[in-house]
Amino acid sequence: MSGLIPPGVPSPTELSDAELEQRLEARRKWLGETAFAYDPPLEPVRGDGVYLYDSAGQRYLDMHSNVPSVGHGHPEVVSAIAAQAATLNTHSRHLNNAVEAYAARLVGLFPAPLGGLIMTCSGSEANDLALRVARLVTGRQGIIVTSGARHGSTAMTAEISPGLNQPLPAHVRTIPAPNPRLAGADALGSWFAARVREEAAILNKTGAGFAALVLDSAFAFDGVFTDPPGFLVEAVEAARQAGGLFIADEVQAGFGRTGELWGFSRHGVVPDVVTLGKPMGNGYPVGGVVMRAEHLARLNASAPYFSGCGGSPVAAAAGMAVLDVIEAEKLVRNAGRSGELLRKGLRRLAKSFPRVAAVRGAGLLFGVDMVSPKTGAPDPEAAGQAINALRRNFILAGRAAPTSHILQLRPPLSISAEQVAQFLEGFSGVLATLA
Amino acid sequence: MSGLIPPGVPSPTELSDAELEQRLEARRKWLGETAFAYDPPLEPVRGDGVYLYDSAGQRYLDMHSNVPSVGHGHPEVVSAIAAQAATLNTHSRHLNNAVEAYAARLVGLFPAPLGGLIMTCSGSEANDLALRVARLVTGRQGIIVTSGARHGSTAMTAEISPGLNQPLPAHVRTIPAPNPRLAGADALGSWFAARVREEAAILNKTGAGFAALVLDSAFAFDGVFTDPPGFLVEAVEAARQAGGLFIADEVQAGFGRTGELWGFSRHGVVPDVVTLGKPMGNGYPVGGVVMRAEHLARLNASAPYFSGCGGSPVAAAAGMAVLDVIEAEKLVRNAGRSGELLRKGLRRLAKSFPRVAAVRGAGLLFGVDMVSPKTGAPDPEAAGQAINALRRNFILAGRAAPTSHILQLRPPLSISAEQVAQFLEGFSGVLATLA
Repeated sequence: MSGLIPPGVPSPTELSDAELEQRLEARRKWLGETAFAYDPPLEPVRGDGVYLYDSAGQRYLDMHSNVPSVGHGHPEVVSAIAAQAATLNTHSRHLNNAVEAYAARLVGLFPAPLGGLIMTCSGSEANDLALRVARLVTGRQGIIVTSGARHGSTAMTAEISPGLNQPLPAHVRTIPAPNPRLAGADALGSWFAARVREEAAILNKTGAGFAALVLDSAFAFDGVFTDPPGFLVEAVEAARQAGGLFIADEVQAGFGRTGELWGFSRHGVVPDVVTLGKPMGNGYPVGGVVMRAEHLARLNASAPYFSGCGGSPVAAAAGMAVLDVIEAEKLVRNAGRSGELLRKGLRRLAKSFPRVAAVRGAGLLFGVDMVSPKTGAPDPEAAGQAINALRRNFILAGRAAPTSHILQLRPPLSISAEQVAQFLEGFSGVLATLA
Repeated sequence: MSGLIPPGVPSPTELSDAELEQRLEARRKWLGETAFAYDPPLEPVRGDGVYLYDSAGQRYLDMHSNVPSVGHGHPEVVSAIAAQAATLNTHSRHLNNAVEAYAARLVGLFPAPLGGLIMTCSGSEANDLALRVARLVTGRQGIIVTSGARHGSTAMTAEISPGLNQPLPAHVRTIPAPNPRLAGADALGSWFAARVREEAAILNKTGAGFAALVLDSAFAFDGVFTDPPGFLVEAVEAARQAGGLFIADEVQAGFGRTGELWGFSRHGVVPDVVTLGKPMGNGYPVGGVVMRAEHLARLNASAPYFSGCGGSPVAAAAGMAVLDVIEAEKLVRNAGRSGELLRKGLRRLAKSFPRVAAVRGAGLLFGVDMVSPKTGAPDPEAAGQAINALRRNFILAGRAAPTSHILQLRPPLSISAEQVAQFLEGFSGVLATLA
């Protein structure tokens, strides 16, 4: 990449040190300390498609924003939200065509026996509710999650989020992420299932009992683990044999991210409960729990769920517009095509640069392991340098838990072949400076 | 009211029985059973100010929608949401003027030592986080709530919501709502404080310990208890003496509802934590936790909170527009003035109709006890008949927990003197048919 800006040289559009300190001081006062995405923090002022812009008009290629999944400020989604908000926005205790039509369409996108929907205000609320469903249906409390997972910010979902580095209660057991390096690709499925079986047995021996296996079906926070397709089959069987449900957390993987509409489809499994979040409304706060009709009836009979904003007509309008755009712009297919270019390009870079030890992912979700070229050990510092160097070169990437040596890429699904090439050129240049 | 439509006669704009059954069948299929606000359910298609409209163009005076607190489809709020959504909507790990300016303005509306804000996607998430703060700060787990309270729909907030009629865990203790009939107005404060002291002592004797007293400062779900002003002082002191925090849940009472900006102001108390929800974004899903700066620092140091949608620029824009409208339209003052007309009118009706045993409330939040005129016993059936008869006369009211004999009134804060008179005339007519 010509004109690459090396580490340590500020981009021309950054705030001065004094200006920045002033902004941080004011922000700290009212909002406390922020874990900013970049150092120094970015101040985007406008978004459009796959780009963010700062106040100087500098354009950044956004390789990390999975919430505006169909593109920043997508005009159709914005129009749908604005039109419905101007017309009607009520709670869900009234008949409403927008809500009913969205529910029918969304649920219709899932395989049987998934058949019922409850809408929430966030993916956290969706996972929180999914846990209640699993505990209600099984009469047991114990949950199994992967060791780097994050499933939400409510108290109950933080409890099943080892990636937040909080102590876990006894009824939450962790298994390692399904890293082919631990077991080999061929044996990964049975190895991962064995881990589920072990932990379920421990939970079933204690008073808690085993209620559910909760997995992000693309393991985004663990570092992205999507291959080989189908490796989840045995783990899901193991969970059911131990009397638990399989909850697929599709907050990261859902709505086309992996090149299929749902992350679990890649594995040919049908979850008992599916949770939806972020990309569902392209930034409008909405989440959902899709479950079997009998589980929904059970929940309603026991503890009817009501949310003042969940299931509002505006949430439904936002969700419907997102589905419309995904279809009209063929974004699932684009995620597959652009994702394939990205995958091939990343693999090429991995061959050229020993800094890159592994590239994993599907569709437009990738984890890139950054290591010391000398020892091959995970190198979180290099990953941090890489994302800040990328940012200085107007490319935005992120990091995945747990040890932060894994770059995470998940651009809006509308990214083009040219934009993928732009990223690869920039990343190549950054890797050259790190080598 | 001339032309009053008696119970049993359908309004001309209702769906036919067959059409209704078809709609319900489809809705049931995808969304499960709905606890509709009215029987038969209403299908509003448009909202404007204090009115909702059905598909036949029939106008309903909305005396119950507290979410669109500054009015249905308020154009300034809708414009602010649309403009910001079209411009930029990101997570909160970037610098953002809209978010920082809103935080500064909102926190500035609270008395010291309240000084820090975390934004969430809903009031449920706000209360969920407030519980974590209280438990973190006190090192104890036990919570005291009133017996009809509802504080949210997450697992943790449902646990402190006896109004949902779920079994409560041992570390959640209930006290009766502060009904002056139980203790007399003069002794209410000390009587209520004694209840707090008793339950805190029980929690402190057990392993759980007493972490927080959580109160909706207007007790909306308990049936609305706002008087006499100041009665909360002793209870808050009792909570602090027992080592717990006082969390004011302002999801119902906040943003002008009681004729003051915050419900707790009526009592001259300063909470340790304040939670915000529904009216904060006039229907845009947003919530917030306002707390002492040192508690925010403590939370950040222990378990940094992050929400993909909480604290987004669009949430901030919606919140800012709501504050602008409240100021520009002097809605807090209007809540006081129109509320006073409503209060006087309701008291007059109570004198004329023995069906109405009590009228409680402040600003634009009222609870109206419906009883049997013969025995004086609570009459939930009459309350149900009243809200459905009001609805047939194009007035929308609601019911409060716990025994559902209490009508709940909480119209948008922009309601005029004429609209209050329209309601009182309609309610008078309905009471005449029930008498």
